[in-house]
Amino acid sequence: MAEVKDCIFCKIIKGEIPCTKIYEDKDVFVMLDISPACPQGGHTLVMPKKHYELITDIPDKELCELTKIIKKMAEALLKYGQGLNIIQNNKKVAGQFVPHVHFHLIPRFEKDGVLIEKWATHKYPDGEMIRVADRIKKLLKD
Amino acid sequence: MAEVKDCIFCKIIKGEIPCTKIYEDKDVFVMLDISPACPQGGHTLVMPKKHYELITDIPDKELCELTKIIKKMAEALLKYGQGLNIIQNNKKVAGQFVPHVHFHLIPRFEKDGVLIEKWATHKYPDGEMIRVADRIKKLLKD
Repeated sequence: MAEVKDCIFCKIIKGEIPCTKIYEDKDVFVMLDISPACPQGGHTLVMPKKHYELITDIPDKELCELTKIIKKMAEALLKYGQGLNIIQNNKKVAGQFVPHVHFHLIPRFEKDGVLIEKWATHKYPDGEMIRVADRIKKLLKD
Repeated sequence: MAEVKDCIFCKIIKGEIPCTKIYEDKDVFVMLDISPACPQGGHTLVMPKKHYELITDIPDKELCELTKIIKKMAEALLKYGQGLNIIQNNKKVAGQFVPHVHFHLIPRFEKDGVLIEKWATHKYPDGEMIRVADRIKKLLKD
């Protein structure tokens, strides 16, 4: 299993650092986040055991298998809470503080005070939306 | 193609409501979010064309294909921005305002003012983390 020496998640997966494990199979590891975003707890992290940094680094087949476990966990967590956020951050600027790809599954409850989805929104200046779309379409082909 | 009469995303996918489309294939539709979370724009929505409400409603095979497109889009958007958040909200209590499953891909930039990942965190009281884990493990088997 590929692992990176100083990666805290690799160390947890290897059992060198304790955690509250929820599920484990050959390729996937699931544990509780020690500092849940929701006061009711249940904030869960799903990750590949193999060390990849970003979602784009995971080979398609492994990503499919990982996604099946995310879906299974989502089924369980939607019974635990009333709703669920799934969040995956890529790079430090986006809030990825451990460079080992992981998905946050955050159960949600009425009036839980969690503000994740209450992001401020912006408006595109006239014509800008088409320009941005064209740029992304070009990047998609590069 | 299954569609729900009053679903705004089904109407967009059918071409009844205009959008700024980025990509489309047999099963997947990708467009710009009209109100981007990041002032630099590029906030993109990836969704199945078929109407499903929650991630848990999507059959595994379709979810795998959708995930491959999310990864492709993530590759392009990581060239557009310096980082990327991928967010999927399930149920209104979690911020799902259109009940047609969709993934937000939000490009991130240094000092962009986006607060999504800056969620408040909580602590488990003594012994509670194990109890929560046991409950989730039981729900996973139910």
